[in-house]
Amino acid sequence: MDQLSNEQLSIMFLSLGTLLIVARILGEASLWIGQPAVLGEMLAGVVLGPTILGTVAPGIFDELFPAKGANALVLSGLTNVYIALFLLVTGLEMDLKTVFAQGRAVLLVGALSIIFPFAIGFGVAWTLPTMIGFEPKANLLNFALFVATALSISSLPILSKTLMDLNLYRTNFGAICIAAAVLNDLIGWLLFAAILAMIQGQGTGGGVATTILMTIGFALGMLTIGRWLCHRILPWLQAYTHWPGGLLAALVALAFFCAALTEWIGVHAIFGAFLVGVAVGDSPHFNRRTRWMLDQFISFIFAPVFFATIGLRVNFAENFHLPLVVVFFTIACVGKIAGALLGAKLSGLENRESWAVAFGLNSRGSMEIILGFLALRNGLIGEQLFVALVITAMGTSIMCGPLVKALLSTDKSLSLASCITAHGFVNPLEANDRKGAIEELAALVSADVGIEASVIAESVWRRERQMASGTQNCIALPTAGIEGLPSPAIAVGMSPTGVDFQSFDGRPAQLVALILVPPKHEADQRRLGGEIAQLFKQWKVRQTALHAPTRTEFLAILKTEDAMKEPLGAA
Amino acid sequence: MDQLSNEQLSIMFLSLGTLLIVARILGEASLWIGQPAVLGEMLAGVVLGPTILGTVAPGIFDELFPAKGANALVLSGLTNVYIALFLLVTGLEMDLKTVFAQGRAVLLVGALSIIFPFAIGFGVAWTLPTMIGFEPKANLLNFALFVATALSISSLPILSKTLMDLNLYRTNFGAICIAAAVLNDLIGWLLFAAILAMIQGQGTGGGVATTILMTIGFALGMLTIGRWLCHRILPWLQAYTHWPGGLLAALVALAFFCAALTEWIGVHAIFGAFLVGVAVGDSPHFNRRTRWMLDQFISFIFAPVFFATIGLRVNFAENFHLPLVVVFFTIACVGKIAGALLGAKLSGLENRESWAVAFGLNSRGSMEIILGFLALRNGLIGEQLFVALVITAMGTSIMCGPLVKALLSTDKSLSLASCITAHGFVNPLEANDRKGAIEELAALVSADVGIEASVIAESVWRRERQMASGTQNCIALPTAGIEGLPSPAIAVGMSPTGVDFQSFDGRPAQLVALILVPPKHEADQRRLGGEIAQLFKQWKVRQTALHAPTRTEFLAILKTEDAMKEPLGAA
Repeated sequence: MDQLSNEQLSIMFLSLGTLLIVARILGEASLWIGQPAVLGEMLAGVVLGPTILGTVAPGIFDELFPAKGANALVLSGLTNVYIALFLLVTGLEMDLKTVFAQGRAVLLVGALSIIFPFAIGFGVAWTLPTMIGFEPKANLLNFALFVATALSISSLPILSKTLMDLNLYRTNFGAICIAAAVLNDLIGWLLFAAILAMIQGQGTGGGVATTILMTIGFALGMLTIGRWLCHRILPWLQAYTHWPGGLLAALVALAFFCAALTEWIGVHAIFGAFLVGVAVGDSPHFNRRTRWMLDQFISFIFAPVFFATIGLRVNFAENFHLPLVVVFFTIACVGKIAGALLGAKLSGLENRESWAVAFGLNSRGSMEIILGFLALRNGLIGEQLFVALVITAMGTSIMCGPLVKALLSTDKSLSLASCITAHGFVNPLEANDRKGAIEELAALVSADVGIEASVIAESVWRRERQMASGTQNCIALPTAGIEGLPSPAIAVGMSPTGVDFQSFDGRPAQLVALILVPPKHEADQRRLGGEIAQLFKQWKVRQTALHAPTRTEFLAILKTEDAMKEPLGAA
Repeated sequence: MDQLSNEQLSIMFLSLGTLLIVARILGEASLWIGQPAVLGEMLAGVVLGPTILGTVAPGIFDELFPAKGANALVLSGLTNVYIALFLLVTGLEMDLKTVFAQGRAVLLVGALSIIFPFAIGFGVAWTLPTMIGFEPKANLLNFALFVATALSISSLPILSKTLMDLNLYRTNFGAICIAAAVLNDLIGWLLFAAILAMIQGQGTGGGVATTILMTIGFALGMLTIGRWLCHRILPWLQAYTHWPGGLLAALVALAFFCAALTEWIGVHAIFGAFLVGVAVGDSPHFNRRTRWMLDQFISFIFAPVFFATIGLRVNFAENFHLPLVVVFFTIACVGKIAGALLGAKLSGLENRESWAVAFGLNSRGSMEIILGFLALRNGLIGEQLFVALVITAMGTSIMCGPLVKALLSTDKSLSLASCITAHGFVNPLEANDRKGAIEELAALVSADVGIEASVIAESVWRRERQMASGTQNCIALPTAGIEGLPSPAIAVGMSPTGVDFQSFDGRPAQLVALILVPPKHEADQRRLGGEIAQLFKQWKVRQTALHAPTRTEFLAILKTEDAMKEPLGAA
C-alpha cells in the first residue's frame, strides 16, 4: 500500500502545524479588533503563501508546501475534508423554520436582496465581461451566472456573530436578518451547484440536463425525505449510542457519504455536506451543546487551516488589480444594499433598521471566499477576479459590524438599575418552567407599574412562544412591549436550580430578567437586555447574584460590576 | 499545485464515510456487550479489509481502498494525523503527579509489571525467535527488544474505563492501578522510541547514538522545561483567546510540531504528540471540560477510522497462525500477571485486590495495537506476529472487565437506604465549598453515630485533599474509614447551586454523599458509592432529589428508583 515516507510525514505535520498556528494567531487578532476570524485566517495564507513567504524565502516555502507530490495531494485531501465539515456546520445553522415563521418581511427582504445583486451582476458580467476579469477561454454564460451568484450570497456566520454581539439575535429585527440570509445562502448555493453542474455536464456524455436533474433531485430529497428521516433517527441515536460522540460520528459519516455523492454528480463535495447540515440543523433533537462542540472543533481547528491554504495557491500581490477590485466591490455593495433596503422598507421596517438590514446582508465573508475558491479550482474565474472577490468578501464583512452597531445604537441615559421596579427582584424563583417564571415575575412588577399581572404575563408568553428568550451563560431575557407602560420596567428572578429557557448553550437560566417596554421601544429593550447579558456573562458575577437575598444587594452588584465592565463587543 | 481529481475526491469521502460508520457501529456494539470500543473498530477493518470484503468482493475493495495512488497517500496521511491526535489524548490522561503521590506501592507494582514481562519476552524472543514469528531478514536484537516492549505495555484507556464502570477510579486501589499503568506505558513508549531510533540510526550516517540521544533529550526536555512552559502558557491562553477553541487549536498545533520533530528524529510522529499530551495533561489549567470535548471528538471520529484502517493492510485469516497466537498470548499473560501480582502482594494489597491489579494491568488494548502497527510499518515484525499481537491485545482486554468485576464484587446485603442515618439528609446545603460541605455533613452524622464531628470531618478532609471525590453527573462522594464506627453511615446533602468537588466532567456537585465506613471496609464504601452514582446519574432523578425537602422523601426516591435501576455496567 502506498504510504508517506518518514520525511513526507514530517513535512506534513510541520506544514499543518504552521498553517494552524499562524491562522489561529491572526484569527484571534482579528477577533480582538472586533473583526471576523476569517479575516486573519485568510491573511495567514497570504503570509505563508507565494505572496510573502514564497517571495521572501522561496526555499522554505517550497520545502514546507511542495506544489507537487504526496504532500500536495495529502494537503488537498485534508482541506477538502475540512471544508466539507465546515459547510456541514454552516448548514446546521440554517434553520428553515425561521424563514417560514417570519413570513412576508423575510420573503420581501430575502427575494429583493437576491434579485437585485443577481440582475446587476449578470448584466455587468454579460455586457462588460473583460472589465470584471473575464478570461476569453472560459464560457461567458457560466462566468456571468457565477458573478451574479457570487454577488447574491450573504454571510450567515458573520451576520449571526454581529447580531449576537449586539444582543439582537433574538429580536424581530434579528430574526428577519437571519432568515433573509438563510434564504440568500440557500438559493445562492443551489444556483452555484447548478452552474457547476452545467460545467461538469458539458464535459461528460450525460449532459447538462442529467447533472442538473440529479442535483435538484438530491437537494429536494435531502430537504424533504432526508430531513424527515434525520428527525426520526436522531432521537434514536441519542438514546442508544454514546453521547455525544455517537451522534457526532453519525453526522460526520452522513456528511461524508453525501459529499461523495455530490462530488460524483459533479457539484462538489461541500454541497452534499451542506445539505446534510440543513436537513439536520433544525431538528429539536440535535441540541445546542452537541452543535456547539462540533462548531468549536471545526471553526477553530479545521476552518483556519482551510482558509489559510487558500492563500497558498494565489499570489495576492501579483494578482491585485485595483480597477477590477473597485468595480467588483462597488457593484457588490450597490446591488445588495439597494435590494435589501428596498425589501426592508417595503416590509415596513424603520429607516435606521432598514439600513442596518442592508449592511448586515451585504457582508459576504467566508461563503463568498469558498464560492470563489471552487470557481477558481474549476477554471470558471482567473486569479485576478479571485483576489478581487476575496477583498470584496473581506471589505463588506469588515464594514458590517461597525455600521450596524452605529445605526442601531440608542439613547444611553436610561440606567439599568433605575428600571428595576421597587418589588422587581426575587431570589429564589419558585417556578421551575418558563411559563411559571414569567408569571411569577409579571406578578412582582404588576403593582409597581399598575398593570394587571395576567396582561403582562400573556404578552410576554405570546412572544416567548414565538422565540425563546434564553441567551447564553445561564441568562434569559423574556420581554414584551406593553400598552400603557410609561417607561421600561424590569423584574429579575434568580433560580439556583435553573429554568429551561431553551438557551443557545443549552444551560438552564439562573438569572431571568423580565424586560417590559412601552410599545415601539424595542431599542430600549435591546439595550437593557444587552447590558444585563454583558454584566452577568461571567460565572463569578452570577454566583454573587445567586447569593443576593434582596433587591438592594442585587443593585449593589449591578453598581460595582457596572463600574468595571468590559466595553461592549470585546467578548 | 497537485490536487485530487473529482473522482478521487468522491472515493476519498466514500471510503472515509464507510470506515467511520462501520467502525462506529461495531464499536458501539462492543460497548453494548461491555467490551472496549476498539474491539469493534478493529473488527470493522477486518470486515472492510482483505480478510472479508477483499475476498468476497475484490472489485469493490480495490475501488474503495486503492493500494496505490493519490487515495492511498491521502488515507495514509489522514490516519497519521488521526493517530497522532489519539496519542495526544492518551498522553493527556497520564497524570504524572499520581505516580509520585502513590509512592512505594506504585513503584513496586509498576516496576515488577514491566520487568517480568520484559525479561520473559526478551528471553523467549532471543532464544526461540522462530517460535514467535521472527523473520530471518530482520535484526534479532531489535526484534527481541520489540517483543519484550510489546509485552510490557498496559492499556491505560481500558483500565480507566473498567475502573470508572466499577466506581473504583478514585479509590486507593484505583489510583495504584492507574499510576502503575501510567508508569508501564510511559516506559514502554520510551523503550519503543529507543528501538525505532536504533533501526533508523542504523540506516543513516548519524548513527544510532545521535538518534537515541536526540530522542532522550526531547523526552526529558518535554517532561521538564516543556511541561513547565505549558503550565505557564495555558492560563494565558485560557484568559486571552476564544474558549475552548483557542486552547484546543494551540494544543493541536503544538502536537503537530512535536510530531514533525520526532518524525524527523526518526522515532515516529506519535511519540511527539504523546509527550505533548503528557506535558500538558496534569496542568490544573487544562480543565476537564476541554479535555472531555477533545476526547469525544477524537475517540469517536478519528480513532475509529484509524483502527479500522489497520485491518485494511493485513489479511487476518491468512496470517492467523494458531501456535504463534497461543504462545504469544501465554507468555504475555504469564509475564504480566506474575509481575503485577508479586508487586501488589509485596506492597501489602489483599489477595483479591492483588489479582484484580494483575488482570487490570494485563489488558493491552489499543496501545499494543498501535505499537504493533508501527513495528509492522517499520518492517520489525511480520504479518503473522502482528495478527497474534492484535489478538493478544484484544483477548487480554476482553478478560479485564469481567475478571476485575468478579474479583472485587462484595456482599450486597447492606442496603443503601439503611445506611442513611436518622439525621443524615439536608436540603439545601449551606456550604459553598468542599471543606464546608464536608463539615456540615459530618456534623449531621456525628450525633447519630456518637463520634465527634471534628474527628469525622478531619479524616474525610485529609482524604479529600489527596484525592478529590467529585465523580461525574454532579455527584460527589467524600469518604473515610472511621475508627470505632460499627457499620457504614451515610449523610446526603443537596446543593442546588452546586459545590465544586473537582469532578471529572467539571460540573459542580449537587448531590454530596458523605460515606463513612469502619476501617478496612473499603469494599463497602465502593459499593455504596457505586449505587449512589448509578441511581443519580440521570438528570431527572437528581432534579427530583433537589426538590426533596426531608429524609423521608429522599428515601422514597431511593426506593422507587432502585426498583427500576439499570444493571451495573450498562452505562
